[in-house]
Amino acid sequence: MTPAQSALLDCLRPVLGAKGIVTDRDAIAPWETDWRRRFHGLAPALLAPASTAEVAATVAAAAHFRVPLVPQGGNSSMVGGATPPADGSALILSLRRMNAMRRVDAEAGLAVAEAGVILSDLHDAALAVGRRFPLSLGAKGNATVGGLVSTNAGGTQVLRFGSMRGLVAGVEAVLADGSIHDGLAPLKKDNRGYDLTQLLVGAEGTLAIVTAATLRLVPVPATRTTAWAATADPQAALALLRRFSHATETLESFEILPRESLAAVLAYVADARAPLTGEHRWHLLIEHTDERGTALMEELLGSALVDGLIADATIAASDAQAAGFWRLRESISDSERALGPASQHDLSVPVDAMPRFMIEAAAACEARFPGTHASGFGHLGDGNIHFHVRAAPGTDPARWYAEDVPVVTRFVDDLVIAAGGSIAAEHGIGQMKLGELERLSSPARLTALRAVKAAMDPHGILNPGKLVTLARAAPGQ
Amino acid sequence: MTPAQSALLDCLRPVLGAKGIVTDRDAIAPWETDWRRRFHGLAPALLAPASTAEVAATVAAAAHFRVPLVPQGGNSSMVGGATPPADGSALILSLRRMNAMRRVDAEAGLAVAEAGVILSDLHDAALAVGRRFPLSLGAKGNATVGGLVSTNAGGTQVLRFGSMRGLVAGVEAVLADGSIHDGLAPLKKDNRGYDLTQLLVGAEGTLAIVTAATLRLVPVPATRTTAWAATADPQAALALLRRFSHATETLESFEILPRESLAAVLAYVADARAPLTGEHRWHLLIEHTDERGTALMEELLGSALVDGLIADATIAASDAQAAGFWRLRESISDSERALGPASQHDLSVPVDAMPRFMIEAAAACEARFPGTHASGFGHLGDGNIHFHVRAAPGTDPARWYAEDVPVVTRFVDDLVIAAGGSIAAEHGIGQMKLGELERLSSPARLTALRAVKAAMDPHGILNPGKLVTLARAAPGQ
Repeated sequence: MTPAQSALLDCLRPVLGAKGIVTDRDAIAPWETDWRRRFHGLAPALLAPASTAEVAATVAAAAHFRVPLVPQGGNSSMVGGATPPADGSALILSLRRMNAMRRVDAEAGLAVAEAGVILSDLHDAALAVGRRFPLSLGAKGNATVGGLVSTNAGGTQVLRFGSMRGLVAGVEAVLADGSIHDGLAPLKKDNRGYDLTQLLVGAEGTLAIVTAATLRLVPVPATRTTAWAATADPQAALALLRRFSHATETLESFEILPRESLAAVLAYVADARAPLTGEHRWHLLIEHTDERGTALMEELLGSALVDGLIADATIAASDAQAAGFWRLRESISDSERALGPASQHDLSVPVDAMPRFMIEAAAACEARFPGTHASGFGHLGDGNIHFHVRAAPGTDPARWYAEDVPVVTRFVDDLVIAAGGSIAAEHGIGQMKLGELERLSSPARLTALRAVKAAMDPHGILNPGKLVTLARAAPGQ
Repeated sequence: MTPAQSALLDCLRPVLGAKGIVTDRDAIAPWETDWRRRFHGLAPALLAPASTAEVAATVAAAAHFRVPLVPQGGNSSMVGGATPPADGSALILSLRRMNAMRRVDAEAGLAVAEAGVILSDLHDAALAVGRRFPLSLGAKGNATVGGLVSTNAGGTQVLRFGSMRGLVAGVEAVLADGSIHDGLAPLKKDNRGYDLTQLLVGAEGTLAIVTAATLRLVPVPATRTTAWAATADPQAALALLRRFSHATETLESFEILPRESLAAVLAYVADARAPLTGEHRWHLLIEHTDERGTALMEELLGSALVDGLIADATIAASDAQAAGFWRLRESISDSERALGPASQHDLSVPVDAMPRFMIEAAAACEARFPGTHASGFGHLGDGNIHFHVRAAPGTDPARWYAEDVPVVTRFVDDLVIAAGGSIAAEHGIGQMKLGELERLSSPARLTALRAVKAAMDPHGILNPGKLVTLARAAPGQ
């Protein structure tokens, strides 16, 4: 521990109390490594304030002593966004003790949740008043509101209600100088200068510490209809997506997966069964909440069958069957991991461009890296897929991750940029993509990112080494 | 003209050509005053680039010579946001020659419009391909895309589709150093660091010059149902709003106006007729596009009548009748202006708090400023009203505007802040509200606004004197 860190802890002890300062190595260890165990850091202490005032005091003191803080919620970042640096220079700022649901207002369709509220608890709190928080993802049992806001999280229901950005009506946050920005009032129109709420959504804790958020709730749908369909190619899937989009405003999911992803799941998950018989190149998982229910689904899938857009389809006959479809979709990452090491890419391109990208990028990767297998699956409706390039059989995992993955990553990222896309669709930049972001951003974007970071966090104490590096100060400044 | 301005023009002449540099006093004059004639500026020249590259060259040269630029579209700001300073220190940067619709894609529901495209032309371009751009406002014949984006414009259709912020899928902009940020790709998920698009929406041209935007288009509704209802109090109106919101997702407008606003319109507009007989304290203009059409409207208004939420109602029997209802609503500002000078406030509070605010703020104003008349009308569904405090009869207009309006403004703004609201709901800050924003913002908000401004526009060349003032540099910096 550095002298500055010791001084900070001395200063915070009366503020945070015994529960609020953790220095026991065993207690800290689980939070020093990301959940995929790809990033390992070191934090001499973990600070756990229990209120906004305590967060403000913590940040003000950290600013005074110039001790960097790494904000952390559920530690479910896919890009090492919540893992402290390895040199022990930063402390972890855990928001998990701030887990109060301050307000749930069914009538207004709003909830005010503190940063440490776990997503599944938010779901439950909304349901308890007959409302729904319409964003979900695999890590819902760990991911917290603060992390979801700070990473502009996505998931499988973005198609209709958008990612977190569209669901956040306001935030409360502590700025880098320890001052509190109270932006929780749910104003539908507010043009008092730059939108600080929108600036903090997706800022990965590098500009301020989000302590609470006002979130939109929507009605619980009376009915939900889920179908599985098979198609020969992604372009046909896009055409079907358009038909659904035009027929209903309640399309909630339109997921695509290739044959090999389904095969991996069927091989890995004990009791998994293929929804359709026969061999199909591509599979679709479609869900809407239109009142017309299965009638609408049958009509659209029926005409798609007639028109040759799809080869086969089945509509879930029960909630259990729908859940079974979703379990197949949600088991892909784990199942593919069992097949061997891969280079994984969370990318987006304009929705129209995605079918072509899926085919051409896979072919380009396999041609460039002989023996690898490349394919993408995910949120076709959002123009966002998870694209995996699996190492050739027999590849040494250590060598693959150390030497090959960076090369594959640059190759894939170049394809994404050429297609007008984003190398960070829903998982953010964190520390994993920082180098690629700087390599591939236009001078204008990079200048703006650095300028905003330097302006909001001039001493670089908020989540250092994530999202963007501070430019070295010019001589004379 | 200053030597720096002369040097800038010399430098830009070969780039912009004769059409791109206007120095004729008569040609510039109309653009030196805002359309309400409340702010008067002086610009030695008006620059009118015709392409993004020309804007980039203009800004780069202006940065070099440290000549401030005031970006301008349709010059329809309500807060002096596009009016140059009076000291002649800045030039006008008109975006009106950049008026190409670069793309209109019905299938994808997207349009790419340059900054100078006029809103009504955008409406027409969307309709020409069977789509709709769902934002409209009184100045649609003048307001341009660049201005609408830069002010996060609202209007009468925000309830369902949101203000500009929700309709902008991407922007192209020139930063203060002349570099071009190309963010037009319509990516539904993109977490490459801070969201520059969202930062520039509503930034009033103080951080960058928006040169084009990718905008969302929505389907043209098959049916539109418009009704006029009367109620005794705004709290009942809110209850009715909730019923509509729960019954349909297609509620597009829910406007409220007091008896005296309707009376002003009926007195001012030659052939205007009251939609309902009898005297009613409050009036509502309600519009939805639900397929159930008048049946749904009748059902909801019928039960509201039975329950005593409203006293009377009528459903427009034709498009012409609906247009008549809207003409009443849209004539309020002009009609009330004819009644005498007023202090006008574009404000918002949480929707739930609006009924009480409307009553209590009006009473508080009339008590504090004897002889005045205070009332609000507008977008109840958005928690946004236009609140007018009319001078006591016989008040000298010059004295009213010079001495009384600032006092009334501070009084009203304090009420807004006490109600957790915003003093700038849909019209922005411009130069009119800059002082009040600085007076009423928390230290955190003001620090953040100034930091972002200083970071993105370090030499203060973009729309000086609007939205936020640059803090004086601290000693030693």
